[in-house]
Amino acid sequence: MYSQRAIDVGLGRRKADKVFTGGKLVNVFTAEVYDAGVAIAGDRIAAIGDVGETIGDETEIIDASGMHLVPGLIDPHVHTEVTKMSITRFASVVLTRGTTSVCTAFDQIAPVKGIDGIRYMLDEAADLPLRIFNPPPSKIPYTIPEGTLGASVGPDDHRIAMKWDEANGIAETTFDFIRAGDSDVIESIGLCEAHKLPVHGHAPFVTGLALGAYANCGARDDHECFSAEETIDKLRNGFFCLLREATMAFNLADCIKAVTEAGLPTRRVSLCSDDTDTSTLVRLGHMDHIVRRAIAEGVDPVAAIQMVTINAADALRVDDQVGAVAPGRYADILLVEDLADFQVSAVYSGGELVASGGELQVALTPPERPAELLRTFSLTPVEPDDLLFRTDMPDGRVEAISMFIPPEIPLRLRRDVELTIEGGVVLNDPSIDVSYVSVLERYNDTGSRSTAFMSGFSLTDGALATSLSPDDENVVCIGANTESMATAINRVIELNGGQVVARGDDILAELPLPLAGIMSDISPAEMVAAEDQLIAAAHELGCGLANPFMWLIFLPITAIPQYSLLDRGFVEQATLSFCSPLVRSV
Amino acid sequence: MYSQRAIDVGLGRRKADKVFTGGKLVNVFTAEVYDAGVAIAGDRIAAIGDVGETIGDETEIIDASGMHLVPGLIDPHVHTEVTKMSITRFASVVLTRGTTSVCTAFDQIAPVKGIDGIRYMLDEAADLPLRIFNPPPSKIPYTIPEGTLGASVGPDDHRIAMKWDEANGIAETTFDFIRAGDSDVIESIGLCEAHKLPVHGHAPFVTGLALGAYANCGARDDHECFSAEETIDKLRNGFFCLLREATMAFNLADCIKAVTEAGLPTRRVSLCSDDTDTSTLVRLGHMDHIVRRAIAEGVDPVAAIQMVTINAADALRVDDQVGAVAPGRYADILLVEDLADFQVSAVYSGGELVASGGELQVALTPPERPAELLRTFSLTPVEPDDLLFRTDMPDGRVEAISMFIPPEIPLRLRRDVELTIEGGVVLNDPSIDVSYVSVLERYNDTGSRSTAFMSGFSLTDGALATSLSPDDENVVCIGANTESMATAINRVIELNGGQVVARGDDILAELPLPLAGIMSDISPAEMVAAEDQLIAAAHELGCGLANPFMWLIFLPITAIPQYSLLDRGFVEQATLSFCSPLVRSV
Repeated sequence: MYSQRAIDVGLGRRKADKVFTGGKLVNVFTAEVYDAGVAIAGDRIAAIGDVGETIGDETEIIDASGMHLVPGLIDPHVHTEVTKMSITRFASVVLTRGTTSVCTAFDQIAPVKGIDGIRYMLDEAADLPLRIFNPPPSKIPYTIPEGTLGASVGPDDHRIAMKWDEANGIAETTFDFIRAGDSDVIESIGLCEAHKLPVHGHAPFVTGLALGAYANCGARDDHECFSAEETIDKLRNGFFCLLREATMAFNLADCIKAVTEAGLPTRRVSLCSDDTDTSTLVRLGHMDHIVRRAIAEGVDPVAAIQMVTINAADALRVDDQVGAVAPGRYADILLVEDLADFQVSAVYSGGELVASGGELQVALTPPERPAELLRTFSLTPVEPDDLLFRTDMPDGRVEAISMFIPPEIPLRLRRDVELTIEGGVVLNDPSIDVSYVSVLERYNDTGSRSTAFMSGFSLTDGALATSLSPDDENVVCIGANTESMATAINRVIELNGGQVVARGDDILAELPLPLAGIMSDISPAEMVAAEDQLIAAAHELGCGLANPFMWLIFLPITAIPQYSLLDRGFVEQATLSFCSPLVRSV
Repeated sequence: MYSQRAIDVGLGRRKADKVFTGGKLVNVFTAEVYDAGVAIAGDRIAAIGDVGETIGDETEIIDASGMHLVPGLIDPHVHTEVTKMSITRFASVVLTRGTTSVCTAFDQIAPVKGIDGIRYMLDEAADLPLRIFNPPPSKIPYTIPEGTLGASVGPDDHRIAMKWDEANGIAETTFDFIRAGDSDVIESIGLCEAHKLPVHGHAPFVTGLALGAYANCGARDDHECFSAEETIDKLRNGFFCLLREATMAFNLADCIKAVTEAGLPTRRVSLCSDDTDTSTLVRLGHMDHIVRRAIAEGVDPVAAIQMVTINAADALRVDDQVGAVAPGRYADILLVEDLADFQVSAVYSGGELVASGGELQVALTPPERPAELLRTFSLTPVEPDDLLFRTDMPDGRVEAISMFIPPEIPLRLRRDVELTIEGGVVLNDPSIDVSYVSVLERYNDTGSRSTAFMSGFSLTDGALATSLSPDDENVVCIGANTESMATAINRVIELNGGQVVARGDDILAELPLPLAGIMSDISPAEMVAAEDQLIAAAHELGCGLANPFMWLIFLPITAIPQYSLLDRGFVEQATLSFCSPLVRSV
């Protein structure tokens, strides 16, 4: 990037503002680690190497003795709203962990407020020392078939967003959209080509000929690898593979074997957090944690650092701006004592110290929120009976599909169960771990809602409800009985958004999420406490999942195999169409 | 890139048009070589790997048994006009060598016809099976100080050109422009940033802090490395290094030691031909030759192939289009039996066979040429006395700077010589290898011309003149006497462009270059014969250089150390200003 100030420093016409001395540079271009200084001019790196001549009387000297100089970390694929923190709060956590850039779609506010919501997030982020690259979602409604939403995003919106400074193409361009020949998505892909912006992918389990088809939509990367074989196939087909280590999707251990066992080169391998809760960020870390995980899996530390710096920047096509401690780039620099240990001691963003010793060194204050973003609900409270699954079938037993969550992989597989029909209602059955699950449209009080069946939560009583629920952000609720479900849902409505655990008429735990119904400005520590309380309350109800809300919230995503639930009905991913969970009378 | 046709093949909705079977795929993403088929849909690669299911009754099977499937080669930095061939003729040669893409500025026609000339070249190329990526020159006039030209290129032109399909930023963004703070170039760099297009560099011998300054202009690559040390410094500073193996600049052998001896990773290392004559292309080859040279210097064959495929595509930011045998890319595929030997047996461009066994398999015919491109000269014939070096100094001896060409490096260094002043004229001195050298403006008959002194050609008689002369394309002439120089220059004028060797009143050899005064539509074989005749004639005149015209033509480039000659005078590169070659009386 052009910087006259940095040019002038390099040419000796002015002195550097700051100079790092005594450190070892981790050069991600050459994979070398060597003694080198770094001269800073404004928010840019002016020069690296022997920079003594750039030091003047006013130059601030930063003693990096005993430290490595590492590029600021990049998360090339993260949904910040899934942490339930506002972008200001999110930044306050991840900056302390060494993350200085994220690529994020803001696709959770999009179904609530459309492109204006995305712009709102970007405007809030503009003053933060966290760099944002923004590919808006390829399309909202994101699901096939469509859910009922508060707003949509399509080619006309992309035409606007691609002119923004933060523009980074389109995100989550699912294989399903390509398979379905979605004309809006195809048009938006054409806009990306015209604007030289990346098409970011999403293609779980797509390999072989289908992967060839998918590559021909122009998708540049994929964050949905589930095995080393899938990773190898995608790398061979030219995809940047963003291996995921999310709060609930631990894909790294298997996928990284493409590197550690198959020995493939790493230049198109990166790492991402995708969906993570605040507790994970605070307790384990962000990209620093994932770097440590990669090293623990046998990746060379410098190669692991490359994955979340230059490789991520290449994937995003922003390697001219970030991803390296090199002139022409932003002065996003970490001090790290031991590369294998990878604890980030200090974080500089744009040349300014923003964190050290894991503590934020700048004040990041959320802005005042406009009323229109705090009151995004229009949903009449429900009665328990509204949530029952009704059928024309006669009383008796029925074979039904209950969605089932397998261990350690965030899918919804088919589980065939036998349920009872009584008086035109299909009953759930906690004794065989079959709960009710409902999704309710919450934007325009259309009354659109549906109920299906779910296993894996082992609820014996009560209910869990959430209005953070990618990618529709409607109200999702699972329960052992409809009374508890109605209590939880109606409390979410009262809060104008939130997560609630209820039993009967009682609220056991709740987390208000007033910002667009999905986010909060509470402190990260408060968020961690709230997440703990919600989980504890769910466990009280018999739930055996370590992190039940992180399983529940994704229920409406139709791009995840094999089943999902929208406000408009139960969806089979193989056919991308509504179907009935009832199979036949038995 | 989006291709519905290729998507349909991958999804099994239609059959492939062609399928390569039995070959070994050179996968440049994974650096693997393995048995794989390749399915073609139109001009795209639909799928790789096990593609048997894409074969239908109409599918053409291409038996690649015993062959490697290699991506079509990319020359990321070449001036096609320097071959003196029209782009159609150029394509007809390099396609047989396996080159399917070139990045070329068309910066030699630019000083003659401006952006319209560049568009003319692109329109001619549009129907060729050679893919062109076009960064117009960062600025014309390209020299500092400026020469007198027929046309200019600036930000207003870039605003137009950046909308073209072939747009690839700006080329030859010299360190000198940045050092001088050229406002036009800075504006054009801003346009590149806004259009997400690369800024291609040019920074010979720039290292250390100055290299940091240069990186802060945003230059993405550099093709001017002269040593392993310079290459290492540029790689560390984030540049893509396009190591050059040109007809007269053999930089590869030294620079590649950054890889073969220093062991640096190759992902940002590429190779380029830069300036080459037709004889080199026909006799040695193009990028195939340079790949063989890299292998001969100790580079692993797959790494060498990566350098001229995916690495070059990354440098140009066109890795979504070319540089790999992978779905989503153009079906530019070579068949190569032995990778270490690297002889290209067959060449497919956009899925069509264009060459096999070194022979073109398609008819490529130059178009009719408009009169305005065949009559670009306006220069009154000169008299011998017009070319003398005149001075106010008294008769006697004078210490003078004679430009000197060192062996095997295309620079003009300073040689201090003593010359004689007689009657206000500084005489050349063949006895100590000091020739006259003149540059004459040839577009608007302004009479702007200058003379200086040059060594290294060891001319004992006669003169060599050329109107192909980057980057001004004025007439450049070197001679042992002004009579021969006038003969040669006047013949170039009569031809409306060309290269001529003359002695006294006699023409010893000549090559008409009527197209813009710099190119010809004669066949490559005829061009080779003409180049041979010109060289032989120069040798008759005592010239000891193997390829004197390839030394002579670059004389006006001010971005090459240490001296150059424009129509407006003698230029010192250190100060980028006109100076006198006369030092002092002795």
